[in-house]
Amino acid sequence: MHTQPSLLPRNSLERYDEVRNQTLKLAATLAPDDQMIQSMPDASPTKWHLAHTTWFFETFVLTPYLRGYIPIDSRFGFLFNSYYKRLGNHPSRAIRGTFSRPTLDQILLYRTHVDNCIDELLGHETSTQVLRLLELGLNHEQQHQELIITDIKHGFWTNPLRPSYQPNQIRIVESGAGPLAWHAFDEGVYEAGHDRGGFAFDNELPQHSVYLKPFCIASRLVTNDEFQTFIADGGYTRPELWLSDGWDQVCESGWQAPLYWEQTDDGWTQFTCRGTLPLSPDEPVCHMSFYEADAFARWAGARLPTEFEWEVAANSARNSTMTFANLLESEMYHPRPAAAQTSLQQIFGDTWEWTSSPYAAYPGYCPPAGLEGEYNGKFMCNQMVLRGGSCATPSSHIRESYRNYFPPKTRWQFSGIRLAHDGTPS
Amino acid sequence: MHTQPSLLPRNSLERYDEVRNQTLKLAATLAPDDQMIQSMPDASPTKWHLAHTTWFFETFVLTPYLRGYIPIDSRFGFLFNSYYKRLGNHPSRAIRGTFSRPTLDQILLYRTHVDNCIDELLGHETSTQVLRLLELGLNHEQQHQELIITDIKHGFWTNPLRPSYQPNQIRIVESGAGPLAWHAFDEGVYEAGHDRGGFAFDNELPQHSVYLKPFCIASRLVTNDEFQTFIADGGYTRPELWLSDGWDQVCESGWQAPLYWEQTDDGWTQFTCRGTLPLSPDEPVCHMSFYEADAFARWAGARLPTEFEWEVAANSARNSTMTFANLLESEMYHPRPAAAQTSLQQIFGDTWEWTSSPYAAYPGYCPPAGLEGEYNGKFMCNQMVLRGGSCATPSSHIRESYRNYFPPKTRWQFSGIRLAHDGTPS
Amino acid sequence: MHTQPSLLPRNSLERYDEVRNQTLKLAATLAPDDQMIQSMPDASPTKWHLAHTTWFFETFVLTPYLRGYIPIDSRFGFLFNSYYKRLGNHPSRAIRGTFSRPTLDQILLYRTHVDNCIDELLGHETSTQVLRLLELGLNHEQQHQELIITDIKHGFWTNPLRPSYQPNQIRIVESGAGPLAWHAFDEGVYEAGHDRGGFAFDNELPQHSVYLKPFCIASRLVTNDEFQTFIADGGYTRPELWLSDGWDQVCESGWQAPLYWEQTDDGWTQFTCRGTLPLSPDEPVCHMSFYEADAFARWAGARLPTEFEWEVAANSARNSTMTFANLLESEMYHPRPAAAQTSLQQIFGDTWEWTSSPYAAYPGYCPPAGLEGEYNGKFMCNQMVLRGGSCATPSSHIRESYRNYFPPKTRWQFSGIRLAHDGTPS
Amino acid sequence: MHTQPSLLPRNSLERYDEVRNQTLKLAATLAPDDQMIQSMPDASPTKWHLAHTTWFFETFVLTPYLRGYIPIDSRFGFLFNSYYKRLGNHPSRAIRGTFSRPTLDQILLYRTHVDNCIDELLGHETSTQVLRLLELGLNHEQQHQELIITDIKHGFWTNPLRPSYQPNQIRIVESGAGPLAWHAFDEGVYEAGHDRGGFAFDNELPQHSVYLKPFCIASRLVTNDEFQTFIADGGYTRPELWLSDGWDQVCESGWQAPLYWEQTDDGWTQFTCRGTLPLSPDEPVCHMSFYEADAFARWAGARLPTEFEWEVAANSARNSTMTFANLLESEMYHPRPAAAQTSLQQIFGDTWEWTSSPYAAYPGYCPPAGLEGEYNGKFMCNQMVLRGGSCATPSSHIRESYRNYFPPKTRWQFSGIRLAHDGTPS
Repeated sequence: MHTQPSLLPRNSLERYDEVRNQTLKLAATLAPDDQMIQSMPDASPTKWHLAHTTWFFETFVLTPYLRGYIPIDSRFGFLFNSYYKRLGNHPSRAIRGTFSRPTLDQILLYRTHVDNCIDELLGHETSTQVLRLLELGLNHEQQHQELIITDIKHGFWTNPLRPSYQPNQIRIVESGAGPLAWHAFDEGVYEAGHDRGGFAFDNELPQHSVYLKPFCIASRLVTNDEFQTFIADGGYTRPELWLSDGWDQVCESGWQAPLYWEQTDDGWTQFTCRGTLPLSPDEPVCHMSFYEADAFARWAGARLPTEFEWEVAANSARNSTMTFANLLESEMYHPRPAAAQTSLQQIFGDTWEWTSSPYAAYPGYCPPAGLEGEYNGKFMCNQMVLRGGSCATPSSHIRESYRNYFPPKTRWQFSGIRLAHDGTPS
Repeated sequence: MHTQPSLLPRNSLERYDEVRNQTLKLAATLAPDDQMIQSMPDASPTKWHLAHTTWFFETFVLTPYLRGYIPIDSRFGFLFNSYYKRLGNHPSRAIRGTFSRPTLDQILLYRTHVDNCIDELLGHETSTQVLRLLELGLNHEQQHQELIITDIKHGFWTNPLRPSYQPNQIRIVESGAGPLAWHAFDEGVYEAGHDRGGFAFDNELPQHSVYLKPFCIASRLVTNDEFQTFIADGGYTRPELWLSDGWDQVCESGWQAPLYWEQTDDGWTQFTCRGTLPLSPDEPVCHMSFYEADAFARWAGARLPTEFEWEVAANSARNSTMTFANLLESEMYHPRPAAAQTSLQQIFGDTWEWTSSPYAAYPGYCPPAGLEGEYNGKFMCNQMVLRGGSCATPSSHIRESYRNYFPPKTRWQFSGIRLAHDGTPS
Repeated sequence: MHTQPSLLPRNSLERYDEVRNQTLKLAATLAPDDQMIQSMPDASPTKWHLAHTTWFFETFVLTPYLRGYIPIDSRFGFLFNSYYKRLGNHPSRAIRGTFSRPTLDQILLYRTHVDNCIDELLGHETSTQVLRLLELGLNHEQQHQELIITDIKHGFWTNPLRPSYQPNQIRIVESGAGPLAWHAFDEGVYEAGHDRGGFAFDNELPQHSVYLKPFCIASRLVTNDEFQTFIADGGYTRPELWLSDGWDQVCESGWQAPLYWEQTDDGWTQFTCRGTLPLSPDEPVCHMSFYEADAFARWAGARLPTEFEWEVAANSARNSTMTFANLLESEMYHPRPAAAQTSLQQIFGDTWEWTSSPYAAYPGYCPPAGLEGEYNGKFMCNQMVLRGGSCATPSSHIRESYRNYFPPKTRWQFSGIRLAHDGTPS
Repeated sequence: MHTQPSLLPRNSLERYDEVRNQTLKLAATLAPDDQMIQSMPDASPTKWHLAHTTWFFETFVLTPYLRGYIPIDSRFGFLFNSYYKRLGNHPSRAIRGTFSRPTLDQILLYRTHVDNCIDELLGHETSTQVLRLLELGLNHEQQHQELIITDIKHGFWTNPLRPSYQPNQIRIVESGAGPLAWHAFDEGVYEAGHDRGGFAFDNELPQHSVYLKPFCIASRLVTNDEFQTFIADGGYTRPELWLSDGWDQVCESGWQAPLYWEQTDDGWTQFTCRGTLPLSPDEPVCHMSFYEADAFARWAGARLPTEFEWEVAANSARNSTMTFANLLESEMYHPRPAAAQTSLQQIFGDTWEWTSSPYAAYPGYCPPAGLEGEYNGKFMCNQMVLRGGSCATPSSHIRESYRNYFPPKTRWQFSGIRLAHDGTPS
């Protein structure tokens, strides 16, 4: 899905193995039973993720480029197609939870078979196109790594027993987040979109100019403590704070707090990948819809940044030390408090950050031809852009120009809030 | 749920083991993955059936009657409660497919634990009440044995790969069904309901008199061949043949044939517990809603029998040789053609038979007090009575007075048609 | 829809005019705006009732029997068809509220045109078939007279201004209902269904024998006061009192009292055809679903009567003075307290009485051929029988054998409760 | 909702009367019955529009500014509130079709009463704030003028008789549209948003700079003929042409053509305000969703313009003769073919033009304080911007910076397509 082919290093296969193994590692502690859960149509079973990411390499790389490739089961081409209409029909997303066959064991064999064939292919094929598609497949797989985490978290939450994805080990409570500081940016024409070498998705292109008014952006994410103040101030009961669609959603769904929060006699708890824990006040607030992020910002007398403001701010911090980056590899699977300092923090990792930008094409955007085109461009409607990655995002997957997107009512992703406001610091 | 306590033989434990083992046997060929499938809210995962039937003994027998009983996991009391409101809340039926924990292995341990405790209890406890509840639990488990078959069949049908529950072995095609004959019964007062010793559910009681007009009932079930004629004659496109609710259902669901039928270039096929097979013309038609059964009967110039007509006919054949009884133990899990003879056949087994009787209380019906009362009586509305058992019904579970019931649109059970008409043979 | 043609007197036309004028009278106080309201798909606009009852005479009588009949607008044959599938398609019920054209004035012209043609037809046509169809049409129109009242009541309730159908005159509070007495009936074979001369609908036929156990039935309807005790005792919050479907309905709809009741600082009020009034304790409770009637009966340690018990009781009172019959002609449009006496009262009028009988065919039932057959028989599924008529039922329309039916969740009809119990008086 | 108060001329009252009379004129040919229709929740009855626009002046102007103002009915403040949450609850939009009371006559009295009071107020009150609110009310009423047309058109379409809003007079077929020409614009920073004196809504502000790449925009709207080619080429059956949400909508709704089109033996027809007419090939295609506009553009090898590209193009034509402007005052209520010339045409009127821009706040946007703020800003999510007005838009209501917005599946507005593409003319 990138239009500027990236130069792949000699060690393509090494990276391939690394990413593929990471996926297996995420599933390793889950029983075959766990890997069948589909707790809502938006989520998929773990084993489906294992199979679908494999299907991607089979469909985009092996079938067209490995002479004499023989699929382990020709029916998987249909079964594990997620969306691509040009390949013909595909199963309805809502029934993935019924795919007991192939069993998990068979899916692991499927992975091995495809991995072996990729190994063979790379032994004698180094065309740019193949390397490009391989890189695309690895980035695709990394997206599903994040979904493995968020989907099993939701699945376990649905089970009244509330199992833990990870052992419920003692967490070291980190020093609290400091006061929020504002970083100011001047009016002017900025460049947005992917500009450097390396991989990028098509929706980050082409790089283009945007005209921004002066703005300020917050040094860190909004905390649980700050969000509790919003709740205590009637945040979920005051329609004037909400977009019309957001208020309808609140009324219909009975939302009174972010997803995974529960009020108990001992105060608020949150369900995490390590089970149910007391709510930690200094951690970034997480698992909220765009509607809630937007309402909170309005209540706070601020607003969400546009995706371009976010990107300009992120670019400005490009060379700073990202000391607190909390991404997939930290194996926390949970956001962490900011440090007590005023520099721009938490740009990458911890939580995705809702922006005020609807997801739309960049000027001159052109989706790739053929199958690859049935991807980012198909969803440029009714979704909002999120930036910065989360604690479930692989570190080699995120960058300043990366655009994630979800419908505004989405809550099961690790999504949080960074505030902004117009003009100069107040 | 019976009000006349049945006398249990000394070999209560023997029967207990037999029924419990039968359940395990039905699940034995299924992978842990398979046992997680919940393909619609009406169906439940196999492993849930394994656990819930165990929960029944724990809740109704062990907790009240085994001193010092210690549950293997106290949370299962909530988790595997299907419906009983007096026990407090219970999980929504629709989320059973997310119960990956306890894993299948843990559920099997749960079964063993409860079985051991029942063993212990029966060593020194032989009160009528305990034996009665034990028998109730075994009949309850037998109902779930049938559901294990019907639910996994639906689950496998939902998977586009269409796996088989049983190996797709060659079936011996049996000699075709003979012509349908009519058996006549005189006007008069008959007794209906359970009358003899042995177990019965509360809804079969009390025995009572019913006044019947003269009627005739068919010697055998309607066949696939006969039903195809109905389809070919526009059966699914002619509103005058249908009840109003039935026609709405046809239009809304797009029904054009019974569940599991598919039209291919080579003719109709049906999905079975042995995979997809060509439609066999002489087999009883199966997997149809009450609406379809009713429309077929109207088209055929006949009607469905009332449940009392059915019972009178069944009673009349009580001492005949049930040569063709095809019940769970035959391990066909599929209905079989009638024999080429005119006697009353297929009364038990093969398919449940829709009657024209709405499911209602018998005169003087009184549900048991307490927990047990939250069962048959709760559903006496919006359901139709089926009689006779199916190829998935255990043979010790069915009898002339047995009343099954489902909403009229239900199709995933092994449900078929026996015709009747008014007056004397035409 | 009767199979035994009734002998019509010479004064057919007189009766025709009487019934047709009664309909106009019911609509006379309503503005054209009012007559457009369709507040839910189950209800129809007043003007639609005016047109559809006219359509019935046009379709069933004039078109087939008046030579050279010319419709005022040939499109009305489609537009005002309610259901009859043999006539081809018909508009969806839910869009009747968009039929602004023909305007009310045009519909009144349509009525006059058809009335004139019926007048002409009766001048020279007295075939039994025509007189029979005419009588059918008049009974059909009387059914819609009741619906005019119940539908506009619901429509006005939906409007936040809560307009009155009738001027809000002072009502004379009548002497309170006396204590409830029980009337006992012996076990035995009884006859049920229509037996005498005069009109009957097909679903009241054929008369047939039923075997009843001994039972008792209440002397009067349950009162508002009695129902308030049920509410105060947690009636709407205790699942053990409800059928399973009923409890689901309560939870889904948030029911806490009968339809049209509201709790205010000054106590309960009820919305009536004369506006919002304080709840009168001795009036029969009204506007309740079968589920609520059934739950109340269970709470009261009683049950609802079957439709046959009801009919036997009503037949026993056939020659008594019906002093308190409160039917359409009383122009109350609201139920009235019983008298302080112990005889069987309120058999006819006041409120329809839910029975425990699902609506099903009588033995030997045979719907009429052709168009007429698309009526009562089409709905013999998922409905419960009500007996006795209400304060909105024309007096010449009700009789002991009359069977009304509605789905069990229906509340907008004038539907109430008469209790029964097994055996001899306690 | 403007932040730059406009200077109103002495003749405020004159303009007030003109706008108010225009509304009455649009309703004048409709019967009371017609004015009750609500054919879907998105549409409102004509009489509701008459009342709600009046309520606006009462609530925003008379109540706060006319001393001693006495409402004609204090309950209207609740009844005719459309949305404003700060005023407390408001009726659900879906029940407006039940507001038979007040009757149409009473609503006309309500209008007169409020008009008289405005007259009185303007006799001695000329504060800028009042004049500003008056102008806001008139612009609000003009929006509802357009809705009166589009809502009654939909209502009449729902009635199977398909009545006409206007007499079905012969239309002079105008000379056909010429070939489509492209107008090119250079890369650079442009100003967008309202800049001049006069009224504007808050969402057109503040004026701000946008950076545009070079683009071309079409000289005229897409025609019915061109859209038929899309259909004939399988446009509605090829998922690759559609956004993902759009394709889901097509499948769910069964769309095969724009709203109001029907295929007959004599070719396509379209339902218009003058009844059903043959489809005229040179007229602009109309009544389509954003999804259809977007799919057509993709099929045509082009795209929709952004709202800023549209505005830049419209500004460039500001001083040209708008010879073919077909707005409300032409009383066509239907789009008209373009002239056979290559200049920019149909910028205003004929059909609203879907842009590719999601509806979002301009940089520095600030909704007004208080009640006024509950308007444009509340809907900045899940909607797409349309530009240019339609044949139902009053001419004094439209301008280059005007932003209309609807959810992307909306079809009942007069909405059409103008194409654009990147770069220089091809």
